[in-house]
Amino acid sequence: MSESGLPVLAVTTGEPAGIGPEISLRAAWSLRHEVRPVLIGDAAFLAMIASELDPEIRLQATNMAAVRHTGLPAGLPDRITVLDCPLKAHVQAGIPDPRNGRSVVQTLDIALEAIRDRWCDAMVTAPVQKSVINDAGVPFSGHTEYLAEKTNTDRVVMMLACEANAHLPYPLRVALATTHLPLRAVPDAITEALLMEVLRITDTDLRTKWGIAAPKILVCGLNPHAGENGYLGREELDVIIPALATAKAAGIDVHGPYPADTLFQHKYLAQADAVLAMYHDQGLTVLKHASLGQGVNVTLGLPVIRTSVDHGTALDVAAQGTGLADAGSMQVAMRVAASMIKK
Amino acid sequence: MSESGLPVLAVTTGEPAGIGPEISLRAAWSLRHEVRPVLIGDAAFLAMIASELDPEIRLQATNMAAVRHTGLPAGLPDRITVLDCPLKAHVQAGIPDPRNGRSVVQTLDIALEAIRDRWCDAMVTAPVQKSVINDAGVPFSGHTEYLAEKTNTDRVVMMLACEANAHLPYPLRVALATTHLPLRAVPDAITEALLMEVLRITDTDLRTKWGIAAPKILVCGLNPHAGENGYLGREELDVIIPALATAKAAGIDVHGPYPADTLFQHKYLAQADAVLAMYHDQGLTVLKHASLGQGVNVTLGLPVIRTSVDHGTALDVAAQGTGLADAGSMQVAMRVAASMIKK
Repeated sequence: MSESGLPVLAVTTGEPAGIGPEISLRAAWSLRHEVRPVLIGDAAFLAMIASELDPEIRLQATNMAAVRHTGLPAGLPDRITVLDCPLKAHVQAGIPDPRNGRSVVQTLDIALEAIRDRWCDAMVTAPVQKSVINDAGVPFSGHTEYLAEKTNTDRVVMMLACEANAHLPYPLRVALATTHLPLRAVPDAITEALLMEVLRITDTDLRTKWGIAAPKILVCGLNPHAGENGYLGREELDVIIPALATAKAAGIDVHGPYPADTLFQHKYLAQADAVLAMYHDQGLTVLKHASLGQGVNVTLGLPVIRTSVDHGTALDVAAQGTGLADAGSMQVAMRVAASMIKK
Repeated sequence: MSESGLPVLAVTTGEPAGIGPEISLRAAWSLRHEVRPVLIGDAAFLAMIASELDPEIRLQATNMAAVRHTGLPAGLPDRITVLDCPLKAHVQAGIPDPRNGRSVVQTLDIALEAIRDRWCDAMVTAPVQKSVINDAGVPFSGHTEYLAEKTNTDRVVMMLACEANAHLPYPLRVALATTHLPLRAVPDAITEALLMEVLRITDTDLRTKWGIAAPKILVCGLNPHAGENGYLGREELDVIIPALATAKAAGIDVHGPYPADTLFQHKYLAQADAVLAMYHDQGLTVLKHASLGQGVNVTLGLPVIRTSVDHGTALDVAAQGTGLADAGSMQVAMRVAASMIKK
């Protein structure tokens, strides 16, 4: 917590050629009385974007040498703290430059250091362009995987969540058993051991990060109609049902496997604290449809609190100039991180 | 059309131990002034269910021998026509009996005969229990496949659709490139030839059955993020993109492939006349979430009009007694079939 009692968020501003810097600044500015965001990125570049967005937005810049020496400076009223992490190359909106890839990754390292050294309480990440980071010579398959490795975490779980809204009379939380795998590789990746770990992490984090005393988790089958007793695939019989039995025996309140197109209907979702989907498109289509652009990505199982937007760098939007991006998901990501800090 | 000018619907009442008989009766009764439904099933059993549901519901029974001889009798006011297709075994609600499997399939043959011989205009099907039909010794992988075979149709397309509702400001129509396949078998089933046929049928039926002059079709990728330029699977590059180019060259207004979790957001769906999903759970989770129990299954590419409910036999609901099932999807299926007859 900051001296003002606000939760302090390390916000990595993401691929500079995308919408990350804009949505980070706009969300930070709009929530400056609820949280203290520390934006990590190139200070001069962020100042330029801020001035394009709204001359009211005032920044307060610092750098890692200073923070390591004297700690995070006290926040000035109506200023957004920016922690300088310089870029190597001039930014052209919409066109990522591999020369800036290492700086983008460095913002993640800084955020982890900030939480380890307790001058930030949680991290919130804007989107990056994976391919550009790889082109920069840094092996990188995603934020989630990178943060797991850097924190020596064997297994993390990707969850997307949203609050209730005009079309959705309950909050929705969807955890994924597998994430960024070709569809072809999904069935063999679903093992009893994986499911048991994913359920354990999801159950634990629903208790500790959301404060749900007795979480109820509904689980999708892998195959259409959850395999229909083996007629449409055997993974439910051979893998998923045994895994759920083990999880139940371990005290996790888990139900299923259910056909995904049944489970995602309102009457089932309304009873669940979380849904476990077997793969990306099975779980995220409804979540992103129903969240109306207000979804948040939460990494479960990490020793730090990390939330993120539920969308990509939107290079096409960034290329059209500042002021066009939707900062809704970034706002929700900051709010959810703050609420988890309080839990 | 009947003598009263109403569209005549051959309604197969489905697995008798499920909710099919109840929803067929209730939907038929509620729509009796808009359509003339001919319920195909065991007349005595349907009469018993009707009396349990509502003593007001009156039936008018006939049988195939009579109809073949003298045609469909004129409809009596406020009576539901029932065409007797006797069951072999006593029905126990919630527990399908393989001895009744052949009778269930026979209702489909009767419906096809009714349309061929022009005493019905379209067919509407209640859900069946595939496994029980197979246990009865009839190879059966689904209504759609069975009807395609019986009408010598090489390729049909399963589409689920719903009208606009309180949560959905536009109608939604989702066609599937593959349907009831184990997930493991999906990637190899997606070929350029398949996609081209599916798109051609979808485009044609949107014009002829829905009366849409220039249908716009959005297409999902197979892999998460539509493969992310090959990083998450190559099927988009190798199969889907070339197929869409061929379809465009053939005059079909097709766009994609898009990541499924992007495409199913409101701003994209609102522009589309239909979505083509690559497989069952990718396409149907949002449709069934958003349709609020009012979805309808339409088989495209058949020489007959066939609609169906978007749910299963709900044996658990049936086991609790009559009067508990939701007939909403069956009502929509009857209404959509009637509107297609008029187009």
